[in-house]
Amino acid sequence: MCELMGMSANVPTDICFSFAGLMQRGGRTGPHRDGWGVVFYEGKGYRLFRDAMPSSESELAGLLRELPIKSCTVISHIRKATRGKITLENTHPFVRELWGRSWCFAHNGTLKGVRRRSLDFYRPIGTTDSEHAFCWLMNALRSRFARPPRPTTFWRQVYSLARELDTLGSFNFLLSDGRYLGAYCSTHLSWLTRCAPFGAAELIDDELRVDFATVTQPTDVVTVVATRPLTRNEIWTTMAPGSMTVFADGRPWLSLGS
Amino acid sequence: MCELMGMSANVPTDICFSFAGLMQRGGRTGPHRDGWGVVFYEGKGYRLFRDAMPSSESELAGLLRELPIKSCTVISHIRKATRGKITLENTHPFVRELWGRSWCFAHNGTLKGVRRRSLDFYRPIGTTDSEHAFCWLMNALRSRFARPPRPTTFWRQVYSLARELDTLGSFNFLLSDGRYLGAYCSTHLSWLTRCAPFGAAELIDDELRVDFATVTQPTDVVTVVATRPLTRNEIWTTMAPGSMTVFADGRPWLSLGS
Repeated sequence: MCELMGMSANVPTDICFSFAGLMQRGGRTGPHRDGWGVVFYEGKGYRLFRDAMPSSESELAGLLRELPIKSCTVISHIRKATRGKITLENTHPFVRELWGRSWCFAHNGTLKGVRRRSLDFYRPIGTTDSEHAFCWLMNALRSRFARPPRPTTFWRQVYSLARELDTLGSFNFLLSDGRYLGAYCSTHLSWLTRCAPFGAAELIDDELRVDFATVTQPTDVVTVVATRPLTRNEIWTTMAPGSMTVFADGRPWLSLGS
Repeated sequence: MCELMGMSANVPTDICFSFAGLMQRGGRTGPHRDGWGVVFYEGKGYRLFRDAMPSSESELAGLLRELPIKSCTVISHIRKATRGKITLENTHPFVRELWGRSWCFAHNGTLKGVRRRSLDFYRPIGTTDSEHAFCWLMNALRSRFARPPRPTTFWRQVYSLARELDTLGSFNFLLSDGRYLGAYCSTHLSWLTRCAPFGAAELIDDELRVDFATVTQPTDVVTVVATRPLTRNEIWTTMAPGSMTVFADGRPWLSLGS
């Protein structure tokens, strides 16, 4: 099993704190030694960092903890390989363009036989069931909608496609185009919204503690989604299996199937 | 005008030396203050680093000079904005998937009216003429070939499409899927192949000197392509306007129109 982390914020926000916790699970406090990746959206653009080595030992991951990258939408993933070799092209998140937007996807779980599903437009670069599922999802959305539909229509469609793939195994995933962050829970996914009054948070996986009151404005709203809660002293919402929550501007915006 | 740099090698090679020279042109020895980007292929996967700030001041560019990234195929670009705002999504290289391969593209020049050309499958994320031209190129290749053709057939098609777009202005570009590196010269592009016996090279743009004999094996072959020669003491081949050279495993592999 891999671990997912996502962030939605109403102002460009530094993810270092949560990222630091997640990266520790990549080989140190967790068994996810088979690569890691993170995408930071910046407007319609994005920065994608990936490595096929354990995040807890990755030089690049170390540098990222220092870089002052701020973003409103982030998707991160650390990998425990179940399908596909340990290579860069098999490392999440995966990216494809649809309707002139960059869509990023990261998956936690295993989908039996998904690679037997035929693909039309989008083809996987690597050999994971995850990327194949993503391509299938994007193909289905492209054929269903010639032009971008209303967001609610779009995410309802994503949800019904997710439900279909979910029957093949476990399909926890994060999907975003930089504006919305969709989180589908197949087995495990939790989220937490931080807003004023901000308090202090302590990472479960690292000797880190941050008092958000000192690094935020009263109007900031930030939601973090993760496979397992990242902090020990905050109350996380555990998502129900088979449900999807879409976040926008740091808050839950649409809830489906729960 | 922007500056391009590409590399093709027969073994994973450290590009830091040439990259260091190029980055100096991004705001210090050159006027290209409007962002930079570099893609390193690793098998079928790639690492893409981009920044919308001058490369000579970019923290990320500085870190890259330290990171031990080795690659057989690299495309790099520093930008002087002529079309499109200075944003991350307008920063080269651009990437699209075709036939299960990641294609990267970087352009130097300006194409008048290219954005009036209709697009079908691939759509630009940003607003540059360069990304529009890339999408048009990929659309044309996808409609021409349902399946990947023989490499010579493919690159001849790329060349004839490049010739067509070249009539709209200047269209120096680099295109790669990680195996081949295509370099089309509209106005300015030079390349240099380094192989045994290796000597020393001195960067024109930086106080850097490296003796390749000390960092290479006798069997290594590396070609570097750049808008302008990067070293002062080596003999670069200046490409003829309207010609394209495709490199593979560090050597010129196919030459068209020269």
